Amino acid sequence: MKVHPDCFPCFFRQAVIALRLSEKTFEGHGEGLFLFEAVMKGIMPELQKADLSKSPAHATTFMHRRIREILRVDPFKKVKSDYNRLAAEACGRLSGVISGSPDPLFTASRLAIAGNIIDFGIFTSVDIDATVKRALEGPIACDDYASFKEAVENARDILYLVDNAGEIAFDRILIEVLKKMGKDVTAVVKGSPVLNDATMEDARETGITDICTVVDNGSDCIGTILDMTSPEFRDLYDKAGLVISKGQGNFETLMDEDRQGKKKIFFLFQSKCEVVSQELGLPLKSMLLKRL
Amino acid sequence: MKVHPDCFPCFFRQAVIALRLSEKTFEGHGEGLFLFEAVMKGIMPELQKADLSKSPAHATTFMHRRIREILRVDPFKKVKSDYNRLAAEACGRLSGVISGSPDPLFTASRLAIAGNIIDFGIFTSVDIDATVKRALEGPIACDDYASFKEAVENARDILYLVDNAGEIAFDRILIEVLKKMGKDVTAVVKGSPVLNDATMEDARETGITDICTVVDNGSDCIGTILDMTSPEFRDLYDKAGLVISKGQGNFETLMDEDRQGKKKIFFLFQSKCEVVSQELGLPLKSMLLKRL
Repeated sequence: MKVHPDCFPCFFRQAVIALRLSEKTFEGHGEGLFLFEAVMKGIMPELQKADLSKSPAHATTFMHRRIREILRVDPFKKVKSDYNRLAAEACGRLSGVISGSPDPLFTASRLAIAGNIIDFGIFTSVDIDATVKRALEGPIACDDYASFKEAVENARDILYLVDNAGEIAFDRILIEVLKKMGKDVTAVVKGSPVLNDATMEDARETGITDICTVVDNGSDCIGTILDMTSPEFRDLYDKAGLVISKGQGNFETLMDEDRQGKKKIFFLFQSKCEVVSQELGLPLKSMLLKRL
Repeated sequence: MKVHPDCFPCFFRQAVIALRLSEKTFEGHGEGLFLFEAVMKGIMPELQKADLSKSPAHATTFMHRRIREILRVDPFKKVKSDYNRLAAEACGRLSGVISGSPDPLFTASRLAIAGNIIDFGIFTSVDIDATVKRALEGPIACDDYASFKEAVENARDILYLVDNAGEIAFDRILIEVLKKMGKDVTAVVKGSPVLNDATMEDARETGITDICTVVDNGSDCIGTILDMTSPEFRDLYDKAGLVISKGQGNFETLMDEDRQGKKKIFFLFQSKCEVVSQELGLPLKSMLLKRL
């Protein structure tokens, strides 16, 4: 997936969100410069260097690195923790949904897609409960559940690439179902903070570390840019019989792997921007359980 | 008025609109570069040089110059002509509104504010008739009409800074009323194309040249950046007893002149972005007839 003209306003919108979450937009930055000027102008050289034939996630990886360098903080640190708590509470309200389901894998996979609504890189507020209701009750735009179920049943080990903090409380429900089905699940978090993506700290906060092996991918990239992950992760990835990939960033960066038949990947996510929705030929905010 | 963090995504949104109107976004630009890449990356050095303590219009003046250089066309040329025609048709449907009004100046000034909805730099589509209805029937957010009326009555000569193509068909109605009141009106257009701003060509297309003196300001700036206008225009501006200023760009660039009491200016416009609306303490899309 390539960068589209409409990605550029969105890149700067993401920078504004990061600034706002840092709560110091208008703080001085030396020589009469406001911090926002340092950030907005500071990301431009990164975007000028960006290879637009690669995914938008690739371009924003370098942009967000620069933002963190200039801000000297991880602007998403607090919201990640807040939303781990909120999502865990929302999941608490779902007790009985899985045990009462005629097909726990179906229900849990829908909840995992619902959880993907939690994404501060794009949204600033969410209505988790409404999204859960929509995921459980409505048809979803792209539904490869039948082949997903077959793939899960046939798999011995599953590599589960999580996306956002908060969202991973929903991933925990699906991982628990997979474990009950006898699968060997390894959850993968980011190696260091980027956007609101889950790191090992978030996996601990939401108790994912108590139910399965959790590894980090050695990378601070948006999505999963294989070249920039650790050799240990790449080894796991190469050997995995089945990959469950959460979120738009992972879709952007791994779709070509899947398209070229290099890997069996199921993408569970919501399309959160017009560019990706157009690429998919679906309306904005579509829910997907997709095998390319 | 200063540049705000939220202006940056908007700058790039404006570039996307210009690209789209040029109808050649994905056309090649040599060396495998898409035109959109040349534009998006090409405006960054302009924005890096921008003095953010000046108005957003100041920064985008340089940005739009660069866009026109890269595109090698005026991307707004066609829509300006289309909207001159559409606006003239809409004004045709208003015949009798002025002659039947108990206060033609009031009605015509409301229509001139309504016409300011036509702005492709920000919007891509408009509903002219609905806006006219809203302007004529509803209260407007900021209404200094009483002092405007007094200022007009006391003025001998009026400098009328028009804003967009299309919109000037509505300005024509107000200028006709001012002329009937015996005022000496000089309408001012841009010296050369920038965004959808009216130039002499648009003044001719809409017949403004038939009813009053029309001059150009010798500039391709968004709004009116006095330092960058022609000596002839500045002379006219300095001598004018009353200035009617249309549109957000003119407000951004002239508000400090007015605030410092250097000039008697009435601003007739609609607030079309969150940043200006916040500056004004008003909701987005507010209609204003404002003396600072």
